[in-house]
Amino acid sequence: MVSNQDKKYIERCFKLALKGRGKVSPNPLVGAVIVKNDHVISEGWHAEFGKDHAEAMAIKKAKVDLSGATLYCNLEPCIHTNKKTPPCYPLVVQAGIKRVVISNLDPNPAVAGNSVEQMQQQGIDVVSGILQEKGWELNRFFFKHIKEKKPWVAVKIAQSIDGKISKSSHEQTWLTGEESRKYVHTLRAEYDAVLAGSNTIRIDDPQLNVRAVLGRSPFKIIIAGKQKLEAQAKVFQNAANETVWVLCDEKTVQRAGNNYDKNIRFIPCPLNHKGHIDIVYILDLLYKENIGSLLVEGGHKVFSSFLQSGYCDELIILQAPIVLGQGLSSVHLQSKIEFKLNFIKKFGNDICFNLRKKQAN
Amino acid sequence: MVSNQDKKYIERCFKLALKGRGKVSPNPLVGAVIVKNDHVISEGWHAEFGKDHAEAMAIKKAKVDLSGATLYCNLEPCIHTNKKTPPCYPLVVQAGIKRVVISNLDPNPAVAGNSVEQMQQQGIDVVSGILQEKGWELNRFFFKHIKEKKPWVAVKIAQSIDGKISKSSHEQTWLTGEESRKYVHTLRAEYDAVLAGSNTIRIDDPQLNVRAVLGRSPFKIIIAGKQKLEAQAKVFQNAANETVWVLCDEKTVQRAGNNYDKNIRFIPCPLNHKGHIDIVYILDLLYKENIGSLLVEGGHKVFSSFLQSGYCDELIILQAPIVLGQGLSSVHLQSKIEFKLNFIKKFGNDICFNLRKKQAN
Repeated sequence: MVSNQDKKYIERCFKLALKGRGKVSPNPLVGAVIVKNDHVISEGWHAEFGKDHAEAMAIKKAKVDLSGATLYCNLEPCIHTNKKTPPCYPLVVQAGIKRVVISNLDPNPAVAGNSVEQMQQQGIDVVSGILQEKGWELNRFFFKHIKEKKPWVAVKIAQSIDGKISKSSHEQTWLTGEESRKYVHTLRAEYDAVLAGSNTIRIDDPQLNVRAVLGRSPFKIIIAGKQKLEAQAKVFQNAANETVWVLCDEKTVQRAGNNYDKNIRFIPCPLNHKGHIDIVYILDLLYKENIGSLLVEGGHKVFSSFLQSGYCDELIILQAPIVLGQGLSSVHLQSKIEFKLNFIKKFGNDICFNLRKKQAN
Repeated sequence: MVSNQDKKYIERCFKLALKGRGKVSPNPLVGAVIVKNDHVISEGWHAEFGKDHAEAMAIKKAKVDLSGATLYCNLEPCIHTNKKTPPCYPLVVQAGIKRVVISNLDPNPAVAGNSVEQMQQQGIDVVSGILQEKGWELNRFFFKHIKEKKPWVAVKIAQSIDGKISKSSHEQTWLTGEESRKYVHTLRAEYDAVLAGSNTIRIDDPQLNVRAVLGRSPFKIIIAGKQKLEAQAKVFQNAANETVWVLCDEKTVQRAGNNYDKNIRFIPCPLNHKGHIDIVYILDLLYKENIGSLLVEGGHKVFSSFLQSGYCDELIILQAPIVLGQGLSSVHLQSKIEFKLNFIKKFGNDICFNLRKKQAN
């Protein structure tokens, strides 16, 4: 039986899990709470990739005997061994925990309910599925990574009320305000990587890192194809600790030679008949590099390619209260795409709305 | 001194005032509350154009002696006599009311603080300016009408995320959902008149009346200019009790002759050098006809003209969670226009945002 208490502690797990945001990828965000006689005995979270899992941290931190206690965690405890840390399932059993309450089962085929089954066989009362939609939302990057072997893709567009991103294709038009800018930096700190096209690098000259908020900067990915990039571009400066990948043709790789810092990688990619790099190729490449989430930042052509490819899981629109009346449209598509409205927020004078890919019926 | 009690009763006035919505124009929406010894003695509102004002209704309805009572009303009581009903100011004095609490002063030059002054000279304690911004919002149609001798103009655009209103200029594309449609009907019931261009009439064939909610239908105004309209258009049907004005050239008036119901008026208007009717001409015409508020419903050319004219007081965007990717943009302007975000609402899967004209600094 599920009680409001159970929900309360699962909510607490979600909150603890967020402590790992931006640091655990491609692992999931997990929090754990151990409760005995209605008292919280210990809490844990997965703080960083390669470090203790949430359950392990909570069990290790506990200073009292855990026999008969309840373990809450938002993801099924792991049972597989081909990874950096030992599995959590034996720890749970050894600690004498009598009840385990879970939000989501781990879709990883090496876990996928096996852990629940094993714990039940050991006489532990296991409940799963508590607030599972919220749990899914929290770990959407992870679920996408495991199930579809692709990073979660969010396309973020800052535009005018009439859907223009700039006055023309060869000039930058700053539309949104300070609060929106902060939000974008918050997103960058959450996503493993951000991506922009070579036009955006040339015209907007963005740094693509995190400055307006606390947090680590993401990997910066530039789709260059055959286009030349200026070595003076800001994205290449400040780059001492920031990884930059330039996806380009073989010629550009050779031209780059050894002229760049070692954290700037020129990665040769095949070009399709239009002279572009296929979106699927890019996503497969990122998956192999353990990039679990990608924030697409611009511009018009890149937005259009990602949307048309069908690989846009999340669309984030930041709309400034300005009607440009003419200029460059945010996207150009061959056919319309429907989304599902997820939430609306106000950032100063701007409107932010978050949409999700509409699942095929 | 202003107390929270005062604010509470002024809020009640706002609520009562709304009972007249859609029925009092070009008069203001006014509610009145009479309080004695902390008890509400009577309430009134301006229910319909030509009927009792709120203060008069409240005073007449009261069944006890009002001497020493406080009158709350969201607008300064009237004092002028060149109108349908007798002035309220003498009624207030005669009733023995000792305190009057007002939200907004009446900007009508025939009132404009005179009434407050007269009441004060009679020994009444008068306070004004309580929640005056909220009062201004409630009566923005009225204030615009009185101060600028133009109707309040709201432009309502239903569009895709990327700012398109249809797939192309010659086909209707239904974008928004049922809840947005209901909201548009709610707006129609509030505004004195709705306006559409001849292209919209031809392609979308709207009825422009109120069906999805309770309320009276607005005047329907069609900008036809030199364009021919089909007599079969839906806007001309169902028209038994609905007034339609066709703004057109002299030739179209003659062509229409006596072929239409008498509630359908063809009004000859001068065309400018582009062959269009000037927006200012239209607004002056509507002002003279006592139209206090206008909802502009389409399409692309009409939206563009109203926005570019500078006579758009309010912009209402209904955005469907669809990226069309190509098609007809909502507007085309020579120069950008900045707005101020007023509020955001969610209608089902659609986003509504309400913007206001940015006042020149």
